[in-house]
Amino acid sequence: MELRSDFTLGLIGGGQLARMSAYQAFRFGIRLAIYAGDPDEPGNYTTPFTHQGQANDWESLLAFARSCDVITLENEFIDADLLLRLRNESKTPIYPTPESFAKIADKRIEKETFAKAGIPVARWMVPSSNDELPELGLDLGYPYVMKSSKGGYDGYGNRTVHTLEEAHQAWEALGGSQGRAIIAEAFVPFRMELAVQVARNHTGIVVYPCCESIQKGHICSTIIVPARIDPLLQQQAQDMAVAACEAIDGIGLFAFEFFLTEQNELLLNESAPRPHNSGHYTIEACVSSQFENHIRAVLGLPLGSSLLRRPAAVMVNLLGKRNQPATAEHVDTLLETADAHLHLYGKLHSKIGRKMGHITLLGDNVEELLTSATHLANSIEL
Amino acid sequence: MELRSDFTLGLIGGGQLARMSAYQAFRFGIRLAIYAGDPDEPGNYTTPFTHQGQANDWESLLAFARSCDVITLENEFIDADLLLRLRNESKTPIYPTPESFAKIADKRIEKETFAKAGIPVARWMVPSSNDELPELGLDLGYPYVMKSSKGGYDGYGNRTVHTLEEAHQAWEALGGSQGRAIIAEAFVPFRMELAVQVARNHTGIVVYPCCESIQKGHICSTIIVPARIDPLLQQQAQDMAVAACEAIDGIGLFAFEFFLTEQNELLLNESAPRPHNSGHYTIEACVSSQFENHIRAVLGLPLGSSLLRRPAAVMVNLLGKRNQPATAEHVDTLLETADAHLHLYGKLHSKIGRKMGHITLLGDNVEELLTSATHLANSIEL
Repeated sequence: MELRSDFTLGLIGGGQLARMSAYQAFRFGIRLAIYAGDPDEPGNYTTPFTHQGQANDWESLLAFARSCDVITLENEFIDADLLLRLRNESKTPIYPTPESFAKIADKRIEKETFAKAGIPVARWMVPSSNDELPELGLDLGYPYVMKSSKGGYDGYGNRTVHTLEEAHQAWEALGGSQGRAIIAEAFVPFRMELAVQVARNHTGIVVYPCCESIQKGHICSTIIVPARIDPLLQQQAQDMAVAACEAIDGIGLFAFEFFLTEQNELLLNESAPRPHNSGHYTIEACVSSQFENHIRAVLGLPLGSSLLRRPAAVMVNLLGKRNQPATAEHVDTLLETADAHLHLYGKLHSKIGRKMGHITLLGDNVEELLTSATHLANSIEL
Repeated sequence: MELRSDFTLGLIGGGQLARMSAYQAFRFGIRLAIYAGDPDEPGNYTTPFTHQGQANDWESLLAFARSCDVITLENEFIDADLLLRLRNESKTPIYPTPESFAKIADKRIEKETFAKAGIPVARWMVPSSNDELPELGLDLGYPYVMKSSKGGYDGYGNRTVHTLEEAHQAWEALGGSQGRAIIAEAFVPFRMELAVQVARNHTGIVVYPCCESIQKGHICSTIIVPARIDPLLQQQAQDMAVAACEAIDGIGLFAFEFFLTEQNELLLNESAPRPHNSGHYTIEACVSSQFENHIRAVLGLPLGSSLLRRPAAVMVNLLGKRNQPATAEHVDTLLETADAHLHLYGKLHSKIGRKMGHITLLGDNVEELLTSATHLANSIEL
């Protein structure tokens, strides 16, 4: 692999993931171009090469792709078919490939892909009309989870239903009557949520530690590394993540989220074909971060090590606490704390519950870090 | 300290130091604006906010300063007087302050500043005409070093003279006849060159480990951390660096270079009011890098820890080996090496001897790292 200074990596999406990826492109001496809908997205402040356009704005997207040497994405909201056409017409390689995207294009296909590869997933059904809801309830049992098959994230597009009446309400709310595809999943009483990131390209595969993910209101709140479970279960989650990445022939950086059931069974819950909130801790905690390995994977470079620099790490998201122009206050205590690291995303407006940044603490003891990180994150106002 | 997303840090200079600083501005959620003479400087690829202009282009510089909330610099080539006027007219704070710059504005003043603070420096004289050269030779003894008092770097502007004839030649070559200020320093037979970085602002002071600097042809080639000398001498260099930083009331990130004489005496040789090549190793090797602490210091934030993550680090510069558009080849072996890190600066053209990037290796044993890093750097073509 040669690294040319006039090589341009194109990134579709301009959010915080793009922003955190930017430096990893710069460190390899290349250029970064960003395609984003909103000129004020935080990634746009990291490069002079910005292209404004929506995911479905074909001519803009094509012009962007033609201006780049390779394309990657910070989200999964573009249709695999569109990506395939984009690669065919622009002749610009896209990683992860449109073929990989097609295998996880929506929740139904994703389930089928992973189940076919022998990876345990929660039982699911695909109702074709609301006439099937009574039978569905009998089959999956209440409660179960109804989901939009496409486009959901951070809990948007998910409903847990406890009765047939709630099922009908969810069907309407999720657009079932308007023909939107919906899947229904058995409710999994889990004792823990886990996540594992995997980087892969033709040079090899690198798997990150198994981390524990604490969600609040369907949004990732806290990541604990390593997960507070038997190392054998950690290894099992890592093996499943590798198998899942191989099942979609993934080239890039992927995150896989798991349920650990009360019976200590692991079920693959979701996949993300990109750096993921669960892997932000890797910026400081690992020899090579998820962002560095994303860029390495997409450029076809050998992958870096995922080894932890310290025995333990805790990441806590900084969610907006108010609706106003973004200003972070009371960061001093955090910055004075040993091996504590601040990341603010540069979003112009703070909104209640919006992901505005994160903090990561490294150390020797998970419980101490967790107490300290939670306290520090709470004390920051933004 | 509040961190506003629309806060703009202005950086005068667009080279690799600006490029490596950029991400540290982004991580604090702020914007970076760059003032540089050449639109193709590598820092310019990290932000949409670029201003083209020379250091002496007053109107451009003033407009730039007015567009920023705080100003810092990646080099010391702007006159302290100009900086003072810039701060007065723009009302934009500048760190390091123009007052600090004035104390190291040229080599003569720098020497006086540090000598007055009781910091040992090599004996020096300031010839006011070439009539004084014979006496100078008698006084300092041959060889001695003649230097332009202003603007030298990487050996440019330095001449070691062994005879009176060479002294007259150096006087001409360095512009003494055209009235350029020249200083003459006693030649120091040193056994080692050392460097220490220091970050300082109103919240405190942080000193980095004492590193060993190997120069080839007056250009930094290799940095070894920790320096292979008695820890007491390391501590002494760190103490001198702190004293030097305090002597100029430095706010920002500073690097101090020392000679260790054959008699194990430390002499302060040069200072740099900015992140320095000798501190690039800190990106991976320290809890907070010199670039992060530069930004923290300038923003008035509490400073981060300079603790080493591993017992040893070696950095080797990647100098251009050919004159052509920049392309780095044979980087794979480096990228496959445990805890080895690549930084390419994105300069468009490679030139023989030009600083194009660097590599850093972390590990447990300095000698092993040195062998490995030297071999790996040699094998990269660019």
